[in-house]
Amino acid sequence: MTTLPELKGNMLIAQSGGPTAVINQTLVGAVLEARKHESIQKVFGAKHGIQGILDEDFINLGRETPANLERVAQTPSSALGSVRKKPTADDCAKIFEVLRKHNIRYFFYIGGNDSAETTYIIHQHAKKAKFDFRCFHLCKTIDNDLRQNDHTPGFGSAAKFVASAFMGDNQDNRALGGVKINIVMGRHAGFLTAASALAKVYPDDGPHLIYLPERPFSMSRFCKDVKKVMKEHGRCVIAVSEGICDSKGTPIIAAHTQEVDSHGNVQLSGTGALGDILANELKAKTGISRVRADTFGYLQRSFPGVMSHVDAAEARQVGASGVAFAVKDFENGSVAIQRKKSKRYAVEFNRVTLKSVAKETRHMPAAFIHKDGNQVTEAFLTYVRPLVGPLPEMGRLKDVPVKGIK
Amino acid sequence: MTTLPELKGNMLIAQSGGPTAVINQTLVGAVLEARKHESIQKVFGAKHGIQGILDEDFINLGRETPANLERVAQTPSSALGSVRKKPTADDCAKIFEVLRKHNIRYFFYIGGNDSAETTYIIHQHAKKAKFDFRCFHLCKTIDNDLRQNDHTPGFGSAAKFVASAFMGDNQDNRALGGVKINIVMGRHAGFLTAASALAKVYPDDGPHLIYLPERPFSMSRFCKDVKKVMKEHGRCVIAVSEGICDSKGTPIIAAHTQEVDSHGNVQLSGTGALGDILANELKAKTGISRVRADTFGYLQRSFPGVMSHVDAAEARQVGASGVAFAVKDFENGSVAIQRKKSKRYAVEFNRVTLKSVAKETRHMPAAFIHKDGNQVTEAFLTYVRPLVGPLPEMGRLKDVPVKGIK
Repeated sequence: MTTLPELKGNMLIAQSGGPTAVINQTLVGAVLEARKHESIQKVFGAKHGIQGILDEDFINLGRETPANLERVAQTPSSALGSVRKKPTADDCAKIFEVLRKHNIRYFFYIGGNDSAETTYIIHQHAKKAKFDFRCFHLCKTIDNDLRQNDHTPGFGSAAKFVASAFMGDNQDNRALGGVKINIVMGRHAGFLTAASALAKVYPDDGPHLIYLPERPFSMSRFCKDVKKVMKEHGRCVIAVSEGICDSKGTPIIAAHTQEVDSHGNVQLSGTGALGDILANELKAKTGISRVRADTFGYLQRSFPGVMSHVDAAEARQVGASGVAFAVKDFENGSVAIQRKKSKRYAVEFNRVTLKSVAKETRHMPAAFIHKDGNQVTEAFLTYVRPLVGPLPEMGRLKDVPVKGIK
Repeated sequence: MTTLPELKGNMLIAQSGGPTAVINQTLVGAVLEARKHESIQKVFGAKHGIQGILDEDFINLGRETPANLERVAQTPSSALGSVRKKPTADDCAKIFEVLRKHNIRYFFYIGGNDSAETTYIIHQHAKKAKFDFRCFHLCKTIDNDLRQNDHTPGFGSAAKFVASAFMGDNQDNRALGGVKINIVMGRHAGFLTAASALAKVYPDDGPHLIYLPERPFSMSRFCKDVKKVMKEHGRCVIAVSEGICDSKGTPIIAAHTQEVDSHGNVQLSGTGALGDILANELKAKTGISRVRADTFGYLQRSFPGVMSHVDAAEARQVGASGVAFAVKDFENGSVAIQRKKSKRYAVEFNRVTLKSVAKETRHMPAAFIHKDGNQVTEAFLTYVRPLVGPLPEMGRLKDVPVKGIK
């Protein structure tokens, strides 16, 4: 590994996109690592991502005590505030003006694939503008859909929430029967919805059906699947990704929502529409009387106290690695979590190019999806278990029959 | 206290209505207490409430080990299965036939006000049928709406889930702005929705507005309230009870649902309709662009790992007290949790009549609701805090300004 020439200056860090339960671990990891390097002088935070750069809305992170930083690290959602914004050429010119003014030579942007795209755009414009700085994307996303990464910070904790929720909801459905549909986040990647499969402890436990955006969704097939499970178990718990699409690629929810952000993403969350569409269809077509739908919504990404320890530790390390890479090894890039080919779970934190992470979505590999398209495979469970860690224990009565009854 | 004559026989216990996170504590409390009394011979459980009596679907709880019972006690949702069913006179006749056949002389029914009504109906018919048995209702409900009770098992844990969810969601809203509406369970009682107020740590934290079913809901007033909060904080987190009604008493969700159970209750949960109605109204009438709605749904009552310790311990004691009362002191009744008038939080478990608990709903007292009808009072917070116990810590950056910036 070559060592870069020393670049003395201030550092700026910001957060972007959807919050996660551990995104502040990455922030704190980067801030604490920066304190170890003499070439990084002051450490600033921009509020609400690049909007805070455009508005010169900075705070001095050098004035934060380690104890307070630890409290922030344990707290869900972006402590610096977030934004969903794709920078224009004019925005970039303004950004470099602000960065120059404050002698900012290190820039870190914590976010998902849209934020990686933003970082890539800024880096491209910096080259043209001959602005000499080090520019890193620090990965996070509960959707787990970043290319180059085995998995991403935020996913493990969100998956723990989803699996826990399904464990409880499976008990609930077992008590009262009928069909229960739960809509899970993840946009066009099914990983988070698939994590619901961790909830299965006993063979008859739900989720009995799992629908992922990687496979076309057919309403008639859905009704058929549910009727089959109802026949077998007398009840049915279903995990559905918010991003399911029909065979033409049109989101099932599309007819009911119009909102689109500046990266071109349709609003999938913050509405119960998809669950209600599916529940009404089932009631109408199958004659099953008790059909309920819940949309887990934002709770999945910001619920305090339900965190994966592995996820929290890795999120912290992504921040620290980014700063270390920027100071010594690379002028730009993204920190990727890559799994070692070892028997015991282990990862390494590598630098990859911004372009290779930006924009495009990583989908569930075919090996993780059951051939019927409505369940996951054992390979997926082996993949996901170490990311989530221990789950609550689910007790069950032995149901010893009473003698003399049928 | 008089002591009843000894009644030797078997015991039957069942669970009814909506599950809670600690309803199995009550089951286990009763089963373990029964083992201490010689007059109780065998201990049976009926599956799915009174339906299991009608179907003679019993299990032998005497064969459960203490270790397995402890695992079940920690597991959310009704381990025996549940039902929503009001017994007819014919059902009661059949019930006594089954109870006689199995020499059941002790009957315990764990549930809310509908289940108390069921227990009351069974007890009334037993008197007419001259069936000599002891018949108790054991309280539970996350809605916290049982008369005679200071609070009910299940509420504290559900309130902890709701408060935690709002803590995280407040951070989420702080990061991305806009309006966030969260629909909370509770039917016609606002206690659970009101518990969202525990999420407030810093003065600008949400929930900024809380709408309870105890006060008529006006859509125009709602839009006005939200605009005011948006002006003050630039964001708005709102807690809305699923049971809010207009000034004529019609549920706001009513236009969108038709399902009614045998106790006459309209389906309020398991649909995102109310959240979407409110979000769409806000978008249309206020011009606020980012409005999101989540419906917490069944997660509130069955989420594993998020339990109030006080709630779990009290739920256990309700089961134990019911059995002790039935063996020694009373032929029938309901176990009520009543708070002592002491400085430090303390409760006693008293027997009250079945009739005084059955059917009718207890509402939030006026002293708990702010005069504006869109917040709770300090008196409510004092009431609810000990029921929920410690909540996650919420860290926040100090936001020290950068010198030389505006």
